[in-house]
Parts: sequence; structure tokens; C-alpha cells
Amino acid sequence: MSANLTINPERLWQTLMESAEVGRTSGGGVRRLTLTDEDKAVRDLFARWVREGGYGLSIDRLGNMFARREGTDPSLAPVLVGSHLDSQAKGGRFDGPLGVIAGLEILRTLDERGISTKRPIEVVNWTNEEGARFPPPMLASLVFSGAESVAFAEDRRDKAGIRFGDELERIGYRGDAPVGGRKIDCYFELHIEQGPKLDAAGLPLGIVTGGFAMQGMRISVRGETAHSGPTPMMLRRNALVGASYVAVAVDDIGWRYAPEDGKTTVARLDLRPNLPGILSDEADLWIDFRHPNKARLPDMVAEVEAAVVESARRSRTKIEIAERWGFGGLTFDPGMIALIRETAARLGVPSMDIETQAGHDAYHLTKVCPTALIFTPCKGGISHNEAEDIDLTATVPGVNVLLQAVLTRAMA
Amino acid sequence: MSANLTINPERLWQTLMESAEVGRTSGGGVRRLTLTDEDKAVRDLFARWVREGGYGLSIDRLGNMFARREGTDPSLAPVLVGSHLDSQAKGGRFDGPLGVIAGLEILRTLDERGISTKRPIEVVNWTNEEGARFPPPMLASLVFSGAESVAFAEDRRDKAGIRFGDELERIGYRGDAPVGGRKIDCYFELHIEQGPKLDAAGLPLGIVTGGFAMQGMRISVRGETAHSGPTPMMLRRNALVGASYVAVAVDDIGWRYAPEDGKTTVARLDLRPNLPGILSDEADLWIDFRHPNKARLPDMVAEVEAAVVESARRSRTKIEIAERWGFGGLTFDPGMIALIRETAARLGVPSMDIETQAGHDAYHLTKVCPTALIFTPCKGGISHNEAEDIDLTATVPGVNVLLQAVLTRAMA
Repeated sequence: MSANLTINPERLWQTLMESAEVGRTSGGGVRRLTLTDEDKAVRDLFARWVREGGYGLSIDRLGNMFARREGTDPSLAPVLVGSHLDSQAKGGRFDGPLGVIAGLEILRTLDERGISTKRPIEVVNWTNEEGARFPPPMLASLVFSGAESVAFAEDRRDKAGIRFGDELERIGYRGDAPVGGRKIDCYFELHIEQGPKLDAAGLPLGIVTGGFAMQGMRISVRGETAHSGPTPMMLRRNALVGASYVAVAVDDIGWRYAPEDGKTTVARLDLRPNLPGILSDEADLWIDFRHPNKARLPDMVAEVEAAVVESARRSRTKIEIAERWGFGGLTFDPGMIALIRETAARLGVPSMDIETQAGHDAYHLTKVCPTALIFTPCKGGISHNEAEDIDLTATVPGVNVLLQAVLTRAMA
Repeated sequence: MSANLTINPERLWQTLMESAEVGRTSGGGVRRLTLTDEDKAVRDLFARWVREGGYGLSIDRLGNMFARREGTDPSLAPVLVGSHLDSQAKGGRFDGPLGVIAGLEILRTLDERGISTKRPIEVVNWTNEEGARFPPPMLASLVFSGAESVAFAEDRRDKAGIRFGDELERIGYRGDAPVGGRKIDCYFELHIEQGPKLDAAGLPLGIVTGGFAMQGMRISVRGETAHSGPTPMMLRRNALVGASYVAVAVDDIGWRYAPEDGKTTVARLDLRPNLPGILSDEADLWIDFRHPNKARLPDMVAEVEAAVVESARRSRTKIEIAERWGFGGLTFDPGMIALIRETAARLGVPSMDIETQAGHDAYHLTKVCPTALIFTPCKGGISHNEAEDIDLTATVPGVNVLLQAVLTRAMA
């Protein structure tokens, strides 16, 4: 276990580029929505790599895939490392796959150098991290953590009403292994930052100390259908207008908190009937807001609640907050943070502490075992976009830190 | 042709209620989108009534249905009367059917009294007046007027990409008769007002002198996809936020012109990808605005154009007016207006002059022959809504005016 043990950058890149071919879009990104044929294809590719490496492959009842390189003491709890291979509808090539393929690259590096570890090392591909097809995101790791049941996940439905469980069965990735409930030594996840800080600072490594507090809401707007022509303004109760008032107000709130690095998102709007010639009577608007300081989140919530009342008044519609959820505001394991910090120092990799603003499977794993999340840069902070890109030379130091930190735990 | 010749109110109502069963919704309205199975069913019902009445039925290449009661001189151009049987996605029971069934009631009344007319009388059911499934509205009467080709109509597509021509074929209502191109003596259309004026004034008849000027636009918004979490406010270019700024501004413009009876509509918004976790990069927003004074429309257009520029600035998206269309600002035939006015006076039916704010097939017929459009009240002005309702006793006087006016032309 020497400091000059390093991963093979060309092999890492080639493997990333092979994965990027699956569900490749014309804009240079990928489309691998959870449990679609493209998700099946990238799972098949991962399974082939696992087979070629001679590792064990275990698939659980929610399709989480675990590639296992055995340790000298198989009775010890494994070190787990990974991320996800699914994507947004028009996603980038690195959001998720980098973490899975970095894990695979670690196994390959150990094989190449003939290094045995005491503990098994498992590389995981979590099902449905993105939640783009089946909300909520990070669904299978949520169940893995014990916070929800397998049946809850199986019953999620996409926009067309298709069940998660049925699609998992259809693509042949419903495995036999139970979801969670076993001892894991620790979990490492490497991910692109999906923000601009590392790239702007010219640093290759972000040590994630905690997560932004996030609050999500579904806002329900109820108006009345009416003819788009003769109906006087006074009689109009257009749900699209009500939702638009909320959307503009939520965006304004984001700007007010921007100096503190707070932000708001107007993510999705569903309208019915949404046709020309008629006013829509139903709208559902999904919004969320995030702040680095958990204590400031209630202030943002209060502003949104006031905006809902004012938007209802101005649009003469009924508006209410129909659902609320949140995550984050957590801190990662101090021991794991210390391990990453020491490893980076030992390898001479400059780093900064950072808070994650996106959700990650690592959030849920904190309930299972000591967990570390580390970031590598992405160009311009662009993510969830086909143009998402990374610089290999800025990425390799972070993967080497991951390799050494995994080894430290696996040798203990 | 005496002033005490009147239609049979119970028969009119029963026939309306029979039509209201086809595509009936749980909310008490109807759903008979153009060329769906429900449209076929209501066409079959109309065809049965025509058969039972012993009238001729001619169907043209766009599915327009003409029920013909022969005149004593079949070589004379027919008097045409009618409206449409299709509906909005969640429409009312009277918007359209009242005009068709009033025409049928006129034929039945003449049969009952054994009255022969010199000219043939034809009752028409126009295909796709609403345009809710296949934009634009008033499609088949547009082609009937010679302003567009049959092929243009056949190539319209619904949201799922299904062709108008294919659906017409599928439901078996592609006829052999040419679309238009024949001599029509005159056209009468009776329709519910779809606005509150007659109901508020307690008057049974609106004599439509002209139409509001209407301008429609499709506004295209282009932003960038990005992660809803880490992306700082400064880097966000959310197409949904851009579209919301436009929607709020367009609604405000409507309120500024409301004292002059001007109005604006934000009708439909399509977003891509419209998912949680990601900012949408594409939005299309359909808006329209109407004013009784055609000369004021350019002022409204100028305000919308300014709002588009300001919305683009505030949302940091690219926004442009991608399409424009319009109708209205026309006046109906003075001779036909005089005929309706004289007939109403003769029958002692109180009326008011009114301008239509909705589009009607009668618009396009003005290019073919002298055309009259008359309105009867609807409760509270509610239309394009399942709650749309009429009062039979407030409706019958208008239908009797229609009967007498049709007779006057058919006897000449």
C-alpha cells in the first residue's frame, strides 16, 4: 500500500467513454432513465465488466448491483464504494458513472498489482438515484437504509402510470438478494461536484463535510376552466396564471438569498387541460429551495408561504402547499472526513471543504455505516445537461485519493 | 309562414339531452374531441336523426355532415344552418350542439306543419370547430371557405402526432363530397354567447354585428438544463421561469385593457424536460388577446412585445415570438343582420347587438355567402366548462327567430 500506487487514467477514461455510448444523445450527453432499455443496456455493460474482472455479482430485489472482490477474510463486512449509472432525461456522461467506474478502476488496479485486501470491496450501482422517471430520487438507497420498504419503491409510478416494480421485472434486474440489512464497514462515493466551486478554484478535490438543507414542495393550484375568448378578466381563474405568479415569486426569493448562497428552483409544472381555447383549471408546481445554513431554511419557507397567498389573491385561484419534503442539513462522519483529509495530504492533493447541494445516495448510507462523499471538478459547474464535461487530469487525483482511502479501510 | 309557427321546446330539449349523453363526463359536461370514438358516436347519432327525418345526408372529404330537406326547386342554392358537435376536452353540453339541433328542430317543425320551402334547407355539423385536439379551430369551415386546402387539414396532428386524415378515415367519416365550391344561399349559426352579457341583461337574443379582433402568439423560450441543486442563481437559465414572467406580464396587460373590454389569455404551456431535479431548457407558451376595437390591438401587441424583452432579461433566457395568427375584426352581412332584427321585432323578442369574442365557423362562411350569427344566453357566461348550462325558456325565443329567418330566406 504505497503512495505511488495509482489508478490507470487511460483505462478509467476508456471505460467512461464506453459507458457514455449507452443511451448517447445527439447533444453529446446520455439518456438512461431508470429501468428503461437504456438503463438495462448500461447494467448489462457493467455486469460484463464485473464478469471479465472475475468479481462476484449480487443483485438485490430493487436492482441494486454489487460487484464483489473478495477479501482474505470474507467474514468481514465489506468496504462499499460506488454511485449510479442512471441519468436525467438529457443528462451528462459523468454524473453517476464516474463514481461507479472509479470503484471498478480501484478493483482493476488492485488486481493488476496483485494486492489482496483483508476486507472484501464491493462496487455498487444504485438503482434510480436521479428519480427523473420515478420520484423520489435516491429511491433504492433509501430502502437500503431501512427508511422505506421494498413495496414502497415497487409501487412508484412514472408519468405514464407504469410501475417501478413491473419495469424492474421487465428489464430482468429484479434480483434475489435482500435490500440492505447486512453489515457494511463503510461507504465511499465519488461524484462530480455539479457546481462551479472546484473548477473556479482550480482544485481537484472537494471533501464534503455536509449537505445543504433542502426543502421541496408541490404547490397545487385550482382554478376554473372557461373559454379563452369571451370570459371577462374578472371571471377568469386560470391555474396557469396562478402557477406563474408562484414561479416568479419563488425565483425572486432565490435572488434575495443568493448573496448567502441560498437558491430556489421552479422545477416542474403540470397543467390540465393545457389546451388552446380554454383556461386550465388544475396546475401542480414542483419547487425547492436550498441554503447552506439549515437555520435559514424556515425564513425561506415563510417567504414562499407568503408568496402563495399573494399569488392566489392576484390570480383569483386557490393555491396550497400540497406536499413538503426535505433532505440534507446533515454532516458526514468525522472519522471518514479525517481519513480523506489525511489521504489527500499524504498524496499532496490540494482540496477544499465543501457542502453538497444536490442529493446523493451517500445521504441515506449515513444511516447504515460511516460514509464519505468526495467531489471532483466539472467544467463550469455544468451538470444535468448534455454539455456536462470533466478534465481527466483534474479528476485522476481525486480517484487516487479514493483508491488509497478504500485501501486503508479494506486493510484494517 | 305565420308568426305563430314555433318550434317544439320539449323536443328540442330532449334531443339536446340525448346528445349530451355521448361522451358525458362525471362533472356533467361532455368530452367529444374531434375524430375520437366519442365524436364518431355523436356523428352516428346525428346521422340516425337525419335518417329518421327522411332527409338526405351528404358527407364531404373532411367529414362535414349536411342534412338536406329538399325544396320545391332543388336547383336553387340551399339555405344552410348549423354549428358543431365536437367539444373541448372537458366541455359543456350546449357549445355547438345547440346550433346543430336547433337546425334539426327547424326541419322537424316544418315537417310537422307540412310546410314546403322553395329552397332546400341544409343543417350542417362542421368538423373540428374547437381545435382542441387538432389546431387550428374552425378547421373544416376554413377549407370550406376556400382559404386552405383539404390536404392542409388532413395533415394536422394532435399532441401524440396522430394525423387528422388518418383519424377521419378510422372513424369512417371521410365522405366523397367535395369540400365547399358550391353555391350556398346564406348561412345561419345560432350559438350560446359563451359570455355573461345576455344573461346579465336578461335578454334572450344577441344579434352579432361583428367579431372582436383576436391576435394569438406562440412564445418560444430557450434556456439551459442544469442541476436544480448546486447551480447558483447567476448561472440559471430556466425556461419555466422565463415563461412564467411572460405569463404574469400577459395577464397584467389583460387587466390594463379590461375597462375597454379587452382581455388576454395564457392558454397553454409546454415544457421540456419538465422533471424534478433539472431546469427546463425549452418552453412554448400559447397566448392570445382580444379587443372589441380592432384599432387597439396593435397597442396590446406592442405591450406584449415589450413584456417579452423584459421577461428575457429577468430570466436570462432567450424569448421570441415564434408564431402569430389572428382572426376577427370582421362585420357580418348588413342584410342578414337586418333580417334577424326585423324577425325579432315581428316576434316581439327583445335583443341586443353584440360582438363575438370567440371564433365561430360563421367567420369563415362570410367569405362564401351572406352570413348571420345569433347568440342565446348561457348561465353566468360559463362555457368551455362542464358546468356550462342554459335556461330552455330563455333559449326558445332565439330558436324561433332562427326558424322564421330561415323560412324567410328559404321561401324567397
